[in-house]
Amino acid sequence: MGVLEHFWAVVPAGGAGTRLWPLSRRGEPKFLLDLTGSGRSLLQATVDRLAPLTGDRVLVVTGRSHRVAVLEQLAPLPAEAVIAEPAPRDSMAAIGLAAALIERRDPDAVMGSFAADHAITDPDAFAACVRRAEAAARDGWLVTIGIEPTSPATGFGYIAQGEELAGHPGVHAVRRFVEKPSAEVAAGYLASGDHRWNAGMFVARPGVLLDLLGTWHPEFAAALRAIAAEPDRMEEVWATLPRIALDHAVAEPAADAGRVAVVPGSFGWDDIGDFANLRALLPADADGISVLGDRSRVRVLDATGLVVTHPDRLVAVVGLADVVVVDTGDALLVTTTARAQDVKAIVESLTASGDLDVT
Amino acid sequence: MGVLEHFWAVVPAGGAGTRLWPLSRRGEPKFLLDLTGSGRSLLQATVDRLAPLTGDRVLVVTGRSHRVAVLEQLAPLPAEAVIAEPAPRDSMAAIGLAAALIERRDPDAVMGSFAADHAITDPDAFAACVRRAEAAARDGWLVTIGIEPTSPATGFGYIAQGEELAGHPGVHAVRRFVEKPSAEVAAGYLASGDHRWNAGMFVARPGVLLDLLGTWHPEFAAALRAIAAEPDRMEEVWATLPRIALDHAVAEPAADAGRVAVVPGSFGWDDIGDFANLRALLPADADGISVLGDRSRVRVLDATGLVVTHPDRLVAVVGLADVVVVDTGDALLVTTTARAQDVKAIVESLTASGDLDVT
Repeated sequence: MGVLEHFWAVVPAGGAGTRLWPLSRRGEPKFLLDLTGSGRSLLQATVDRLAPLTGDRVLVVTGRSHRVAVLEQLAPLPAEAVIAEPAPRDSMAAIGLAAALIERRDPDAVMGSFAADHAITDPDAFAACVRRAEAAARDGWLVTIGIEPTSPATGFGYIAQGEELAGHPGVHAVRRFVEKPSAEVAAGYLASGDHRWNAGMFVARPGVLLDLLGTWHPEFAAALRAIAAEPDRMEEVWATLPRIALDHAVAEPAADAGRVAVVPGSFGWDDIGDFANLRALLPADADGISVLGDRSRVRVLDATGLVVTHPDRLVAVVGLADVVVVDTGDALLVTTTARAQDVKAIVESLTASGDLDVT
Repeated sequence: MGVLEHFWAVVPAGGAGTRLWPLSRRGEPKFLLDLTGSGRSLLQATVDRLAPLTGDRVLVVTGRSHRVAVLEQLAPLPAEAVIAEPAPRDSMAAIGLAAALIERRDPDAVMGSFAADHAITDPDAFAACVRRAEAAARDGWLVTIGIEPTSPATGFGYIAQGEELAGHPGVHAVRRFVEKPSAEVAAGYLASGDHRWNAGMFVARPGVLLDLLGTWHPEFAAALRAIAAEPDRMEEVWATLPRIALDHAVAEPAADAGRVAVVPGSFGWDDIGDFANLRALLPADADGISVLGDRSRVRVLDATGLVVTHPDRLVAVVGLADVVVVDTGDALLVTTTARAQDVKAIVESLTASGDLDVT
């Protein structure tokens, strides 16, 4: 099973990871961090995972302020493999621009878009799903990879899966995309057996993706193709693009039009949205403590949870269950896994008070 | 109300303050720290509090390794005012040596011994108690100042108070000293109205103290007087002294012999034994957070407790009640006020594993 000819990886590397503060910062966001203790950042792990499928056909789309860091982490990736957005304009603009560029460079291309800041524990199972998706995409489908849910999560959108496609075993039609559900609805989705988590992974021919976009947003698709044709117009045109997610701009209406397929996948996927996710992703020792960093610098007495260490400091935790302690050079967070979502409010408070040096 | 002629303050400055780790360290113990945010260390505040009563008649007894720091903090106190113990040998040796030295220098002396690491919020009320104690001590009593209990504390020994002494209003005979009680017994003591906390404050003529010691430990008293007579023999004799607390060596048997009096006092006393005590001592803001350090560097969302800040770091606490967060340059503690006593176990674990650099 070698490289897929004409298959391109697009890696949108954006998102602040605010709920992972103070680990994730504006200047060093989540995708640049090694959150799994693997020695590779989430971005590097994403590219590592795709390289066996795409070879050197990788485009990373990131913010201007992160371009240098991305190139450093992905060396020896050539400079032209990193597209710097003049300003963030949501996922349709980022992925659509990559599609327009690939469309011109490789008329036989199929592209797959995979976020730079997700973790996957079984890369072989992931690769098998991508291969199935690539084959269906080559036949004109907009294909998403839907994660088989392991819990009634309310933090993800879901994909309602339909009949298997003829000629594409393991690939199904998508009935519809559904928004983040209530707990009750999520439990129903889980029980149904035919709902998948929407992990934002899309595989398609670039032309198919742009033509679908053109169906509902003709000016948007034209603008993306104009930038690809005349890169000097990037600055001017980019500022006019709508801020909209690919899901809303293309995937949802295309599903209603019967143009979207899903490959159900089960490969240990996590978007590491907050410290509760991060804790679940890391191994816990016999004490019930998960550590990102140097375990030998953590002392625990009757405590469970997550500790993120800083090289300068020993951390001692006594008598707290499901605690989250995140120690960095200039900021320290103490919370619980149950309150992991509320970390965002701290960052908002710091931003509002002008304490930008620690955000 | 001026200085009391021939009244000497003895300030034993020992004790590791292990349960206040990582704030308190072997190299910088509790008494050298400003734990109240007053700008003065506990030692400095202790001497400040006594100076209006004793003038420059102060003797501090401390470990050799802390002699320089003590002199720096108490400048311009002369070098001879600080007695450096060759090794810690508990309170009877420390206070007894001071008694023997004062006995030779001032035959009319009365001395009062007050730990260097306690906090007192009403120094005027404290001074009034010391004056009453000094007067009774001058008449030959071994006088202790007993704290009027405000709760059924189980962490202190108690003093059972008897009849008021003739000629000494506000001074009572001591029936007996009792060890740290169970919660049930402590509740009974509190209800009785005639039990005081033993804060280890003793006022006596040096000769009375040493003669009482000589009654039960004649060689010990003789050894202390020998050091005072021939300071060159300090090293040799010190090593032979018993390790025993003044309470056990003198106060308890002397009470049984009807030689001890108590001045009940109510002046906001706290021995700051652990972080639960420290939290109670510090003012809490509207959020229910007490901060030692820079409050502006603490962000709180639905949390109460104590935060000790480090100048380098902002601290954010989300969703934890009665939490204790102590941030220092090389060690970080996260616990709860309910588990404050167990901090000692962390220090023991660090000592056992040879991590002495952070203890």
